Amino acid sequence: MLFSQWGELAFHRWLEERFGTVPRGRGIGEDAALLPLADGFLALTSDAVVEGVHFRREWFAWAEIGRRAAYACLSDLAAVCAQPRGMLLSLGVPPDLPAEAVQEMVAGLAKAGEEFGAPLLGGDTTAAAALFADLMAVGHSQRPWWRTTAQAGDVLVVTGALGGPAAALELLQAGRQTACPAWPTLRARLATPTPRVREALALAALPVHAAIDISDGLLLDAGRLAQASGLRAVLRAEHLPTAPGVREAAALLGRSPLEFTAAGGEEYELLLALPAAAVAQATQILAALSCALTTVGHLEAGRGVVLLDAAGQEVVLPRAGWEHYAPVC
Amino acid sequence: MLFSQWGELAFHRWLEERFGTVPRGRGIGEDAALLPLADGFLALTSDAVVEGVHFRREWFAWAEIGRRAAYACLSDLAAVCAQPRGMLLSLGVPPDLPAEAVQEMVAGLAKAGEEFGAPLLGGDTTAAAALFADLMAVGHSQRPWWRTTAQAGDVLVVTGALGGPAAALELLQAGRQTACPAWPTLRARLATPTPRVREALALAALPVHAAIDISDGLLLDAGRLAQASGLRAVLRAEHLPTAPGVREAAALLGRSPLEFTAAGGEEYELLLALPAAAVAQATQILAALSCALTTVGHLEAGRGVVLLDAAGQEVVLPRAGWEHYAPVC
Repeated sequence: MLFSQWGELAFHRWLEERFGTVPRGRGIGEDAALLPLADGFLALTSDAVVEGVHFRREWFAWAEIGRRAAYACLSDLAAVCAQPRGMLLSLGVPPDLPAEAVQEMVAGLAKAGEEFGAPLLGGDTTAAAALFADLMAVGHSQRPWWRTTAQAGDVLVVTGALGGPAAALELLQAGRQTACPAWPTLRARLATPTPRVREALALAALPVHAAIDISDGLLLDAGRLAQASGLRAVLRAEHLPTAPGVREAAALLGRSPLEFTAAGGEEYELLLALPAAAVAQATQILAALSCALTTVGHLEAGRGVVLLDAAGQEVVLPRAGWEHYAPVC
Repeated sequence: MLFSQWGELAFHRWLEERFGTVPRGRGIGEDAALLPLADGFLALTSDAVVEGVHFRREWFAWAEIGRRAAYACLSDLAAVCAQPRGMLLSLGVPPDLPAEAVQEMVAGLAKAGEEFGAPLLGGDTTAAAALFADLMAVGHSQRPWWRTTAQAGDVLVVTGALGGPAAALELLQAGRQTACPAWPTLRARLATPTPRVREALALAALPVHAAIDISDGLLLDAGRLAQASGLRAVLRAEHLPTAPGVREAAALLGRSPLEFTAAGGEEYELLLALPAAAVAQATQILAALSCALTTVGHLEAGRGVVLLDAAGQEVVLPRAGWEHYAPVC
């Protein structure tokens, strides 16, 4: 059987079965692996981007490509409430790539890491037919958030507003960006998706029971959190915060905005499960960081994830979320 | 200017100038980046292998490809005297690769990590035109070894015996392996190059002033250690320990054995700088682990690296060592 027929999800299940139980830590299946230290936990994550799979070079400036790679890793650290400490970069470089492109990309990612306390510490370089940048970030967490520890009755809240990166990407894929007046706003969401590191650390003292970043889409990642905790996630379509420009792009593309807000990937917002009593304080803390926090649903006994409309009917979308293995180009 | 014209070494110099000074830690330029913790140092390293650049699939079993990737990372941890704690794998998989190949490779690398205390903790998967496996390993060191702290007068000692992997690789490249009776011995050196993790940890209490792994060849890496410490390395050709089969392969290929022992890459032995008074104890400790330790030269005031023959004349080899960026296939 070919790898592409087997599929990424089957591969992940195989990995979890074979290697999922790490003594005293948790690894495969979390946003970041967590290793116990004398003092708290070490959080480790890696994220690889490949030209022609994750981006086309004409879509972004090289510094943006580097920054996006760094932010993807830092978002994983935010999802486990870890303070970033450093990054390693393994770079596969095609011989005909201009040196300036490499310099700008590396400078962009190093600067992005430094913003959040994670300098570029080292790595590796190799020749490659197609450019790839694999970034690993390491952080430290006194009391990490897990996916597995949500409780029935927890409220699900999400940071920021949703759908912008996915709408921007679909405009690019369709070559319709010039037709959309909201394009500059949407492009900014795709090109510079700020990871919620400061927001996560600001919430460290609150009783957050579980967390995940929704880089594969709210619906898919809410389902992962629910499954890891042995619960059912109920999301309310009318409560999802919609990023500026998403409705316009959806209209232009003949799609429902929900396809972007509920199922759009490349999103670096956090989904948190916490007791209803803690929501007001969390909202207040994040407001001081200019970050919205919106209640989008709750967790209950059961399995799976469901998206309900205002009438309580299930909304079924063409696809639930994004597989990393699937090319976006 | 194209990246290939600029070159890997220029890129590394640029990285060191731009990002080399990490507050309270050392990163770029060491085998592993070192980050201070409350208790000792965190050691981080990454190593990427790309099919068609670092190996051909017909050269190795898939489990060997995985194991070699793990051992390369673990060797970097050995070079800073760190106890391995875990690994992350970012995998780029061509769609037409058999799922079984991925399973065998991942199982091989996970098993290799576990042997040395570093379970596979997580990672990332992506589509890619050519298979790549980027492995990152993390370890902990109470008192790490650096490249920068060798002292004039230090003796240079090397673990094991040299030249086997490079001789095996050149036989493969030339398609001459069946012509060499020593091929099985040499192949084993290339396919399963044991990292010197246990050996490094066993020497932790000794006054090792500086260390490096010689994965790019003894001469090149001795030069790096000398340069980092602001010294000159003097190596003695007649003292280099030659691995079994290397002389036979060299004769067959019409090459000097020194080209393999002094300048052959893919070698996972350690080069250590320590006071002459500590050599006997180090030798005794490693003998208990069935590992030879050989004095191959010394460090003195000055710059650069020189290889001398028995008459004290400089030996000049066709190439000093291996650039990672250069394909071996």
